[in-house]
Amino acid sequence: MKGITVKQPGGPEQLELTELATPKPMDGQLLIKVQNAAVNRTDIITRQGKSGYMKNPVLGVEVAGIVEDVTGNSPFAVGERVMGLVNGGGYAEYALMPVDRAMKIPDNFSFEQGAAIPEVFLTAFQTLYWIGKLTKHESVLIHAGASGVGTAAIQLAKHISDAKVIVTAGSQKKLDFCQQLGADVLINYKEKAFEEDVLKATDGKGVDLILDFIGADYWEKNLASIKQGGRWVLIGTLGGGVVPNVNLMALMAKYVQLYGTLLTPRSDEYKANLAKEFTEVVIPYFENGSIKPIVDTVFPIEDTAKAHTYMEENRNIGKIIIQVQGN
Amino acid sequence: MKGITVKQPGGPEQLELTELATPKPMDGQLLIKVQNAAVNRTDIITRQGKSGYMKNPVLGVEVAGIVEDVTGNSPFAVGERVMGLVNGGGYAEYALMPVDRAMKIPDNFSFEQGAAIPEVFLTAFQTLYWIGKLTKHESVLIHAGASGVGTAAIQLAKHISDAKVIVTAGSQKKLDFCQQLGADVLINYKEKAFEEDVLKATDGKGVDLILDFIGADYWEKNLASIKQGGRWVLIGTLGGGVVPNVNLMALMAKYVQLYGTLLTPRSDEYKANLAKEFTEVVIPYFENGSIKPIVDTVFPIEDTAKAHTYMEENRNIGKIIIQVQGN
Repeated sequence: MKGITVKQPGGPEQLELTELATPKPMDGQLLIKVQNAAVNRTDIITRQGKSGYMKNPVLGVEVAGIVEDVTGNSPFAVGERVMGLVNGGGYAEYALMPVDRAMKIPDNFSFEQGAAIPEVFLTAFQTLYWIGKLTKHESVLIHAGASGVGTAAIQLAKHISDAKVIVTAGSQKKLDFCQQLGADVLINYKEKAFEEDVLKATDGKGVDLILDFIGADYWEKNLASIKQGGRWVLIGTLGGGVVPNVNLMALMAKYVQLYGTLLTPRSDEYKANLAKEFTEVVIPYFENGSIKPIVDTVFPIEDTAKAHTYMEENRNIGKIIIQVQGN
Repeated sequence: MKGITVKQPGGPEQLELTELATPKPMDGQLLIKVQNAAVNRTDIITRQGKSGYMKNPVLGVEVAGIVEDVTGNSPFAVGERVMGLVNGGGYAEYALMPVDRAMKIPDNFSFEQGAAIPEVFLTAFQTLYWIGKLTKHESVLIHAGASGVGTAAIQLAKHISDAKVIVTAGSQKKLDFCQQLGADVLINYKEKAFEEDVLKATDGKGVDLILDFIGADYWEKNLASIKQGGRWVLIGTLGGGVVPNVNLMALMAKYVQLYGTLLTPRSDEYKANLAKEFTEVVIPYFENGSIKPIVDTVFPIEDTAKAHTYMEENRNIGKIIIQVQGN
């Protein structure tokens, strides 16, 4: 089969479409004929060799495709359309998916849309609900609102919790898109200090929950934006990973609950449970059309390097998808 | 009545025993004839004027004494022995206590012992259980094990949760005392890097929960000591309040749950609920003698300055008590 590997840790030019052995499913795994994979920041980090060196890894942590082979018990039959997280190997014609992580693609969605769901929607669901404990009518500040996880989180917070959704993004175009998805308060972080607008929108109290993909650059502003006793979920460091001079007394005085988290390195069991609850709670919103996966661009697998560059330049609104079959 | 006020923000020499108006209880308050008050770090911060300037404040946030007067409904009658948190004014012959925060002093305890209970045991209970969510047989790292909150937390974690209790302290004498209270692993932080012993005691995994009174000085070591997904409750900054560089990716990779908290500035309702649950859960352990308040020294009210100096020199094991009546 064909797949994308990394020649040496480095830039997008290190990605190579090459001939690989087709993987064989073991007990509890599905062999998926991959129609589409999606690009994630964790793929870029792996490509750069920053998450530990592995020789010529096959990138890709989420796919949508057709069940080609089943080993052991499975609720899915050969030929069914599924989507889900995989432990690497997604940018390839065939990939292995733990069966308890597979989710049926809603009938109203294409494979491209299916590939745009798992990572960002599961991350948004995990951070908003499992970690962030968002409840009805609370307020949530979502940074990078037009990103993959951002667009998922806006929709979940709005449709499931009727939350007051406050977003930041770097252009009017991105903010307009966030508004279409349901965001209530739109802040262009390039034009103003976002914490002022956040306080204005929350009667001076600050938000109940922050989804923070930015990290260091926003540390003080997030601290100013959170309410006393608020939850702050740290899931990315697009704005730097090291905060200088952190004032612990400020965290104490505000009773801040700060949660660091990542989804990719979590255990198989964790991901299976997350997929299960997600299927029960969120899939109905997909089926009735109220929540939608957001596909920005589809690149053929030969152009995977371009897809990486596109993400690294933050040009996308929603997901960047790779077309694996049918090129 | 007599009471201790602060002449000017500053050192212990600013404390003055003077004549004050006896306070009058309003609805929902008890007038307490104070037998004993206890010294807390928050008193020292107030004395120094670091928590906002108030003219000639009467210090003291916890007392034990006799109900002298009752206004409105009260489960306590005049003459009963009670202990509890007060909103300042504890270093005086009479103090006002919100009735829903008052707790009956167990019959087997003196007033001195009663005054040694509220702040440290409620803080230990709040941080271990309400915030730290300690469950049976988990492991907990308690810094400053011989401090007031430390000695309370060791006993609660041991008797209520049969936890593996790991403590740090700065002398063998203090560690011996922690061991008598039930601590399982004793680490002299002056002699070794505590994180190595913590990992050794937890099969290399790290602890489930950290009670951190130290802050900046221990930041990296605490990060090395906590297990993946562990809870870290930040309740003091004895070792500095500013961390020079915080690596957010390390918090994310370990799924750290960091909780900043303080008890004194919490709402009346919060303190009332805490006292209520504490009474139900912990008082029985006092009554059967398995958990004990730890009194280090009792100073007559005239020597309150000495009591403050004694705390500032970290010489105490357990609580420093002020004798108000009966001098």
